Amino acid sequence: MREEKSFHMTADEFRRHGHAVIDWIADYHERIESYPVLSPVEPGEVRASLPAHPPSQAEPFSRILADIEKVVLPGTTHWQSPNFYAFFPCNASGPAILGDLLSSGLGVQGMLWATSPACTELETLVLDWLVEMLDLPEQFRSTQSGGGVIQDTASSAALCALLAARERATNFTSNRQGCDRKLVAYASSQAHSSIEKAVQIAGLGRDNLRLVEVDEKFAMRPAVLADQIESDRRAGRIPCFACATVGTTSSNAIDPVRRIGQICRERGLWLHVDAAMSGTAALCPEFRHMQDGLELADSYAFNPHKWMFTNFDCDCFWVADRATLIKTLSVLPEYLKNKATASGAVFDYRDWQIPLGRRFRSLKLWFVIRHYGIEGLQHHIRRHVELAQQFARWVSQDGRFELAAPVPLNLVCFRHRGGDQVNQALMDRLNRSGDLYLTHTRLQDQITLRFCVGQTHTEARHVRQAWQRIQEEAEALAGQGGERAG
Amino acid sequence: MREEKSFHMTADEFRRHGHAVIDWIADYHERIESYPVLSPVEPGEVRASLPAHPPSQAEPFSRILADIEKVVLPGTTHWQSPNFYAFFPCNASGPAILGDLLSSGLGVQGMLWATSPACTELETLVLDWLVEMLDLPEQFRSTQSGGGVIQDTASSAALCALLAARERATNFTSNRQGCDRKLVAYASSQAHSSIEKAVQIAGLGRDNLRLVEVDEKFAMRPAVLADQIESDRRAGRIPCFACATVGTTSSNAIDPVRRIGQICRERGLWLHVDAAMSGTAALCPEFRHMQDGLELADSYAFNPHKWMFTNFDCDCFWVADRATLIKTLSVLPEYLKNKATASGAVFDYRDWQIPLGRRFRSLKLWFVIRHYGIEGLQHHIRRHVELAQQFARWVSQDGRFELAAPVPLNLVCFRHRGGDQVNQALMDRLNRSGDLYLTHTRLQDQITLRFCVGQTHTEARHVRQAWQRIQEEAEALAGQGGERAG
Repeated sequence: MREEKSFHMTADEFRRHGHAVIDWIADYHERIESYPVLSPVEPGEVRASLPAHPPSQAEPFSRILADIEKVVLPGTTHWQSPNFYAFFPCNASGPAILGDLLSSGLGVQGMLWATSPACTELETLVLDWLVEMLDLPEQFRSTQSGGGVIQDTASSAALCALLAARERATNFTSNRQGCDRKLVAYASSQAHSSIEKAVQIAGLGRDNLRLVEVDEKFAMRPAVLADQIESDRRAGRIPCFACATVGTTSSNAIDPVRRIGQICRERGLWLHVDAAMSGTAALCPEFRHMQDGLELADSYAFNPHKWMFTNFDCDCFWVADRATLIKTLSVLPEYLKNKATASGAVFDYRDWQIPLGRRFRSLKLWFVIRHYGIEGLQHHIRRHVELAQQFARWVSQDGRFELAAPVPLNLVCFRHRGGDQVNQALMDRLNRSGDLYLTHTRLQDQITLRFCVGQTHTEARHVRQAWQRIQEEAEALAGQGGERAG
Repeated sequence: MREEKSFHMTADEFRRHGHAVIDWIADYHERIESYPVLSPVEPGEVRASLPAHPPSQAEPFSRILADIEKVVLPGTTHWQSPNFYAFFPCNASGPAILGDLLSSGLGVQGMLWATSPACTELETLVLDWLVEMLDLPEQFRSTQSGGGVIQDTASSAALCALLAARERATNFTSNRQGCDRKLVAYASSQAHSSIEKAVQIAGLGRDNLRLVEVDEKFAMRPAVLADQIESDRRAGRIPCFACATVGTTSSNAIDPVRRIGQICRERGLWLHVDAAMSGTAALCPEFRHMQDGLELADSYAFNPHKWMFTNFDCDCFWVADRATLIKTLSVLPEYLKNKATASGAVFDYRDWQIPLGRRFRSLKLWFVIRHYGIEGLQHHIRRHVELAQQFARWVSQDGRFELAAPVPLNLVCFRHRGGDQVNQALMDRLNRSGDLYLTHTRLQDQITLRFCVGQTHTEARHVRQAWQRIQEEAEALAGQGGERAG
């Protein structure tokens, strides 16, 4: 039998190059603090350093890998730096990287149970484990009426929840007949932009999204929600969906889930709880009060890819009534029919999400949970919260600064008392320095700096340094007369 | 400075465990033909072999890795086996696995240009390279009015295209006001189920999706499309979107893109071309005729994660007019505002997709293109097509079998002349044997076997063996009296 000509990487080459890549990653993480956190390149700079045309002939792997160092790193904003305090984190960790590597190596596509039973069953199991780890209500377990699934992001989870709500509220006719501008959705004015995007995508229209007023802590006012629902009802509209946020992106505000849940139950609305960032804190019993009332929710999502050391993408999404979700998202063509599906004894996760295909994403999550154990995860989450609380104390003790919002967990919203221009200049100087990276929001209509302590490797020394750098730059700005600086 | 207590994997541990995982993957690929392609486990079997509760304490990595062998492999359907002929392939390759590993190691989240310029610019560049490699029309280049982006799947690409079409057809009011049941979409009766799903998600309603009749080759009849559009117009509806498929999932049928494109142009419909599987063939000039007329398309998608040796997920999606796509999908909250975005000089890919966050997925694609070179990719695609054509000849020369559809590329649809029960029994016996995995569809209302030659490592000897096994099982069935078997 003749050997066929092949351009594939041989097993031996894969071993050799694979070890080199593993070592490169280990080295990268060891020296990561030596890079400016925020990439300093200008638009177009990365592209300009690369060939305009694709290669006709194969290139040696060593040359490809060298370009990571030469071309990619200068254009990288280092999300895995312990000096990353921007947005919310997007954490990697050793076990997650290796779990994901195995997923790539196995290369299974888990759209149906039959296309890799382990891909589906491990995911279902790990999401049941998390119900226990986070003390979520029983109805979210796959062994009850519900079940969990891994989505790419909280945006997709919210969209799936909204679609199920839309179908339920229309007696399962919206998929068939289309939307008619009568359905209304609710979230606080501080809810994530993905809710607005979901309402647009799902055909409800953002004119039919009510952004409910918040209180002085930036949490939704349930009485206003109730009034708004009544007023929409009276106008002949159909309130169908509400999103409560546990830990808003802007300021980590926590909507009162129980009260919102009661309102939704009484009025037949689907309640989705978005705890994308802060849900991880529920690993620790002392933080679980923030989502009291969760048994009133129809769906819930949090992102291990933010704070739980699990590489992007990994959003965990649970529903209390999986039948409604599946009925909403299932389309079964002949070429996907198979005996296991027909038996009804299995989950086909393609019916729980927007895309058809799916990766074996539970491996990385399983690896993280087993590598750290519940104890290890709790330790690091508690430590991040402690460090953020310490930072908040420093801010509040410095007369030049003020806290702009409560600090329930690990996000500190603060500002210099000098006004918008000073805060903008302060942020720009800090970010340009490369020593740390933080971002902003607007609260009480003022530019507010966000400092989120949640990166995998952030320790006390990094937070101390960050506070020192903030003080230094504030001083430098004061020396320059503040407003003109930056 | 005290060392903080830590449960994280150290750099040295990461090197050690990482090398072990790389070696495990290399071993796995070397022995992959020794496993039954389709996992033989029963529903619940994988879960039952795992602990019901999560671990409180950390576990050693070696124990976690051992479970891949012990628990995961028996429940795995081996998509990377050269004996995998089911569905369409979902290929891995050495360079793709390692590119994706680097993506995990870097751990950047590329929602905005600023959150990692290299992540955005490399993606834009590689998608421009592909325009050249596949000879796609100029309008899809980022340097012209269009541009490309990596989506997770062709389902999401189709949804994004439909949303942009919806907005364009309503003068950009559907996002704001919601859908009103007047918009109509079109695809052939053989189009992928994701089109139906997209029409449901986007609020058009599947009553407003016209599944246009196909010809004897299972390709859309353009005259019927034109009539249907006119009839919907006359009924006061608004035709807004058509999907032409280049290589349907069921039988690899090729819709006449040019004719459909002319109809869409004349009548103002958005034309999306779904070439998820077969688009890869356009790497070879001799196959490009299948998508003649593509310059009339508003958007185009194909999946390197199917046939182009790039690990899932990787769907490449281009639009001719990026402004419309961005206007459709952009929602900009304060906390994402930044100078680069405000300058208008950069792409923020969050505005090109449903989710907000995104992985550095272009790395694996870049690695594949450079590792193989255009020449290497062409070689393997041509070889797969040759092998499929050879298989089709064997089928047509065996009196017991017949071809059920034309074989333009690498999918052979065929059946035993003995009827549905024989074909079902034949497929079940083959799949149960573990020697190969193939799936079915229905054509001319008969069960039809699909044999897709496209797995990375499939060579002549595998296809020969498969045909031999098919003949053996057909003989065994005949000996048993056909219908009663299986």
